[in-house]
Amino acid sequence: MRLFQRDLRRRGIRAALIVSRVATHWLTGFRGTASFTVVPSRGEPTFLTDFRYIETARASLAGMRIVEQAQGAGEQIARLLARHTGERLALEGCLPHDQWLWARRLLPPGARVANATLILSALRAVKSEPEITAIRRAVRVGDAIFQDAIPWLRRRLRRGALTESEVARWLRREFEERWGEGPSFPPIVATGANSALPHATPGNRPIRTGHFLLLDFGLVLSGHCSDMTRTLVIGKPSRRQRQTYEIVLEAQLAALGAVRAGVRARDVDGAAREVIRRAGHGDRFGHGTGHGVGLEIHEAPRIASTSKERLQAGMVITIEPGIYLPGFGGVRIEDMVVVRRGGADILTQSPKELISL
Amino acid sequence: MRLFQRDLRRRGIRAALIVSRVATHWLTGFRGTASFTVVPSRGEPTFLTDFRYIETARASLAGMRIVEQAQGAGEQIARLLARHTGERLALEGCLPHDQWLWARRLLPPGARVANATLILSALRAVKSEPEITAIRRAVRVGDAIFQDAIPWLRRRLRRGALTESEVARWLRREFEERWGEGPSFPPIVATGANSALPHATPGNRPIRTGHFLLLDFGLVLSGHCSDMTRTLVIGKPSRRQRQTYEIVLEAQLAALGAVRAGVRARDVDGAAREVIRRAGHGDRFGHGTGHGVGLEIHEAPRIASTSKERLQAGMVITIEPGIYLPGFGGVRIEDMVVVRRGGADILTQSPKELISL
Repeated sequence: MRLFQRDLRRRGIRAALIVSRVATHWLTGFRGTASFTVVPSRGEPTFLTDFRYIETARASLAGMRIVEQAQGAGEQIARLLARHTGERLALEGCLPHDQWLWARRLLPPGARVANATLILSALRAVKSEPEITAIRRAVRVGDAIFQDAIPWLRRRLRRGALTESEVARWLRREFEERWGEGPSFPPIVATGANSALPHATPGNRPIRTGHFLLLDFGLVLSGHCSDMTRTLVIGKPSRRQRQTYEIVLEAQLAALGAVRAGVRARDVDGAAREVIRRAGHGDRFGHGTGHGVGLEIHEAPRIASTSKERLQAGMVITIEPGIYLPGFGGVRIEDMVVVRRGGADILTQSPKELISL
Repeated sequence: MRLFQRDLRRRGIRAALIVSRVATHWLTGFRGTASFTVVPSRGEPTFLTDFRYIETARASLAGMRIVEQAQGAGEQIARLLARHTGERLALEGCLPHDQWLWARRLLPPGARVANATLILSALRAVKSEPEITAIRRAVRVGDAIFQDAIPWLRRRLRRGALTESEVARWLRREFEERWGEGPSFPPIVATGANSALPHATPGNRPIRTGHFLLLDFGLVLSGHCSDMTRTLVIGKPSRRQRQTYEIVLEAQLAALGAVRAGVRARDVDGAAREVIRRAGHGDRFGHGTGHGVGLEIHEAPRIASTSKERLQAGMVITIEPGIYLPGFGGVRIEDMVVVRRGGADILTQSPKELISL
């Protein structure tokens, strides 16, 4: 909250109206669905919420004036903002357009509107050490699940047919067992030709000898997301499988090696892309190399050829190049890392050699 | 899709650009995250998606032209819409404002913009029979979970301390076991004073004799949501507990009795509210009586004192009045129903007498 208020002052913005769930969570710690926070650039913010949440808010939030909202809350918000006639105020650009129009009408006459989402997204990209600790815990759980997945998969494959959906269900159950709040995104479990689809939906496709098995999953723990991908092979890998895997691994290591505070995000992407291009698969790596992770599974910064940002110390990002060969299968290897001054602090600790089941 | 195109024609709208995930799912069946659908009021829609989804889209979507999007897709969309210079076009009002501005810039000069979200929300509120069947299946699974919850809760309570969080975790695991796609919202498990918070977060609060235990949960099955609430009591109910429960049940039955195609949604709300008011708890029922349910857990229509709509045959709604007494506890009873010409077709089949554990 203090970082945000300082940023507002620096930009000459007098107050911000915060409505979205994730911004509210990041700024105040409140995780309910219905609240409005009016943040002046100086002084105490006002937190409005309704009947359903007011008792929780009163008990758990500090440093803010807590107010129970009347029907719709509009008049209360307009009153709080009325002193800022003609000044610069911020609304979130990530609001549904209908809601943005509603919020816009609450601003006093002559207000000039800045985009609070852009400001918050830049602030949120750089994590505090407690946030990094929370993310590290979520990543550790992901690693532990992957470690258990190997013997479980071997056992199940020995017993007969196993489908992508069954593996996805097992993953989801593990997220629960290990005290997560559920998946950070629907797990991707893809085998055979399906693994050549970067965002495949798990189906009733049996996992067969001779194919890749791509697992891309993450969970939410205390509100923080994890994200990892490993690609396994069923049976002894073919020469082509081994070569494809090694190119992706080399690309991933190259991108990891390029991570360091101060470098351009697009140069990290370039490091992975160059390895894949040189190996003749330049057109089979159709997505970016990574993205920020935090309260949301996709946050700033993007690690892509079109990224304009530079990496900053404290950013938490994924590094996940891949090669997708239609009809043959795909390989992706993904770690989460903290950007540090000296390089990448790799959070994901699962092994990266090609595991065959 | 045909209903939507007919509605566009009726409103003099020449085309709509669809971006949101839920509208895309409802209109096309596609469930990926990144796509754009340009729907002309007559003729074949064009579906654009990226590298990650294009193969799935080609294999699974019919009746649309499938196009792989180039970087950003903006130019392709603008070209498709260019023939509609000066005409009425629809964008979704539920888009993030930033995205709405991006989409607005793709429209040809002089385009007048209608709100596709409002049009779709009214269409989606009235379910087809296949949709009702899908929702009924999700509700059945919820009923089955509740039926299993009773002996499980009894067994666990006999064995000693049981917390809200443990019950919530058990519920989530059941959603998985029964082939759901996970919860339709984070399950609410609230006991003691926590049950007086309509949207309580499950915590490490032990479930103790003499208290209410409120379970509000639902799951997603084949993309369709269920939602139900039952309030139990631990041990023999006190007189005050029994009375509170009976008022809520009477209010719920009154609202169910008022449901029928053609009635005003606010009269259904009024039927429940009147019972609670007459019993002296008018100020302890601070939320609406219900909401539509479908692909999303909260859809049109709202059943509240401020609702303007009339119920239509085929709408699927919740009926969920409650009384919340701070420091004492809360009771809510919630069923899902299909609005029919003759009255309410109640989907939820779990018993509604006060169950003591």
